[in-house]
Amino acid sequence: MKIRPLGDRVLVEPIEEKEQTVGGIIIPDSAKEKPMQGKVIAVGKKLDKDGNEVKFDVKAGDTVLLPKYGGTEVKVDDKKLQLVREEDLLGVIEK
Amino acid sequence: MKIRPLGDRVLVEPIEEKEQTVGGIIIPDSAKEKPMQGKVIAVGKKLDKDGNEVKFDVKAGDTVLLPKYGGTEVKVDDKKLQLVREEDLLGVIEK
Amino acid sequence: MKIRPLGDRVLVEPIEEKEQTVGGIIIPDSAKEKPMQGKVIAVGKKLDKDGNEVKFDVKAGDTVLLPKYGGTEVKVDDKKLQLVREEDLLGVIEK
Amino acid sequence: MKIRPLGDRVLVEPIEEKEQTVGGIIIPDSAKEKPMQGKVIAVGKKLDKDGNEVKFDVKAGDTVLLPKYGGTEVKVDDKKLQLVREEDLLGVIEK
Amino acid sequence: MKIRPLGDRVLVEPIEEKEQTVGGIIIPDSAKEKPMQGKVIAVGKKLDKDGNEVKFDVKAGDTVLLPKYGGTEVKVDDKKLQLVREEDLLGVIEK
Amino acid sequence: MKIRPLGDRVLVEPIEEKEQTVGGIIIPDSAKEKPMQGKVIAVGKKLDKDGNEVKFDVKAGDTVLLPKYGGTEVKVDDKKLQLVREEDLLGVIEK
Amino acid sequence: MKIRPLGDRVLVEPIEEKEQTVGGIIIPDSAKEKPMQGKVIAVGKKLDKDGNEVKFDVKAGDTVLLPKYGGTEVKVDDKKLQLVREEDLLGVIEK
Repeated sequence: MKIRPLGDRVLVEPIEEKEQTVGGIIIPDSAKEKPMQGKVIAVGKKLDKDGNEVKFDVKAGDTVLLPKYGGTEVKVDDKKLQLVREEDLLGVIEK
Repeated sequence: MKIRPLGDRVLVEPIEEKEQTVGGIIIPDSAKEKPMQGKVIAVGKKLDKDGNEVKFDVKAGDTVLLPKYGGTEVKVDDKKLQLVREEDLLGVIEK
Repeated sequence: MKIRPLGDRVLVEPIEEKEQTVGGIIIPDSAKEKPMQGKVIAVGKKLDKDGNEVKFDVKAGDTVLLPKYGGTEVKVDDKKLQLVREEDLLGVIEK
Repeated sequence: MKIRPLGDRVLVEPIEEKEQTVGGIIIPDSAKEKPMQGKVIAVGKKLDKDGNEVKFDVKAGDTVLLPKYGGTEVKVDDKKLQLVREEDLLGVIEK
Repeated sequence: MKIRPLGDRVLVEPIEEKEQTVGGIIIPDSAKEKPMQGKVIAVGKKLDKDGNEVKFDVKAGDTVLLPKYGGTEVKVDDKKLQLVREEDLLGVIEK
Repeated sequence: MKIRPLGDRVLVEPIEEKEQTVGGIIIPDSAKEKPMQGKVIAVGKKLDKDGNEVKFDVKAGDTVLLPKYGGTEVKVDDKKLQLVREEDLLGVIEK
Repeated sequence: MKIRPLGDRVLVEPIEEKEQTVGGIIIPDSAKEKPMQGKVIAVGKKLDKDGNEVKFDVKAGDTVLLPKYGGTEVKVDDKKLQLVREEDLLGVIEK
């Protein structure tokens, strides 16, 4: 069973804060609740004004920086996932 | 008797939370009131700027993730339905 | 004497709630004040960017679902009518 | 002396409520202050994106339904007039 | 010394209320502070999307109706002037 | 050392109020804090939709009227400067 | 390990206030919390409407003026960085 994001949405599995410290990137104290890193699981489908599909700037497997606001949480098989519009993603962490 | 959604609206029959747990997807506690899954019953009719019909990304029978906000409830033959703009639908659950 | 709606407006005669229960569609409790069904009496006149007339998705005689917000009430010969922008109409009830 | 409305504005002379009851159209109680009928005195001048003049949907002499909000009052020779953007006019009363 | 308005702005010299009563046009009581008539002193410079200059609908010398809100006051040689965007001007008084 | 404004921004050095009275132009009492005249030090770089550079309506050396709101203050070598979007500048004072 | 900014975002490493005084540029008192200078570390990727890449107005190594509002803080290897949309950057300091 899987979720197919609609439109310009990206399905992201947030990464727990403990893992984040290992990787060397920490989100500041004032942003404890939601902002964090996540792993892209799936992307939606964007069309330009002529109806042609437009490539996403992120792909499944990418580690992304999630915005503090925006995005909606859903639970799948006990995993909390997030559906975030691509333009709200801040950056990609390249290792 | 049936409802034909207007414009980019999608008619959705929400799925009760009990069914949701069976399927393995649960909407988080903080979102008890409205957000949930639903089954698409009918889609409206979208036109591009040249007046050509544009296909919807969802179709009757799809199981969709409904947004917390947005959408309007109507009752038909004792069923509570929702009219939601397509761009507010979060994702499609594929089994 | 009649009212010609301007622009993308639709003139609608709301249907009393009693009639609504007969037909099998009931608007939920939390929406008692304004949202309801109505019968389209007249539509306005929409133009595309080249000045060509654009067809409305509803026509006189259609039974439509009215939005909770939006629309303006006027009284004609003791009938309370509503002027609603077409894009605010939710759906058409087909019998 | 006269006022030439600028842009998409329409100059309207509101019709007193007493006259309105005679004609059979009454604006509801909750809208006593401003919304009412008016007679169009003059229209402005609208241009499309190529600089060509665009016809107004109302003309001098038309009886129009004024919106509750929008429009600015001016006084000319002891008459209170209103300058209203055309797209805010609700409808035309045809007798 | 003079002010050249920038963009779609119009430089207007407001006309004192006493003069206004003489001319027969009075702004209503509820609008005592700012809205009034003014004389156009200079207009800015508007370009269309191809970079061609677009004519203003008002010209130096015109008597215009000023909006209640919008516009910025400046003082030049003891005269209080207003810089108002053209689309905020309500109408031109033609005598 | 100098600042290159980005986009449609203009770098302005505000002129002290004392100088303003000499020149004959005074900003009204209700606008003591920020609105005033300034001298343009540098302009940014604007592109049209085809990527061609678009000329600014003001140039270095111009005396401009600054808006009450908008603009950001920076200090360079003990001078307080302002970065203001060009479309927020009200006018140019020509002597 | 590095961060690749998404879309029109720029990754900036803020410069501590002490360094700022040395360089001669000081941000005013009323703006102590966030606004300051920063060094550009990386820029995102912007596309025009035809899908062609558009050059940024800033490049890695530039010293930029950061806006008071806008931008999101992230921590990488104990450095606090900011992700700021390019159009929110105020200017570039050229030495």
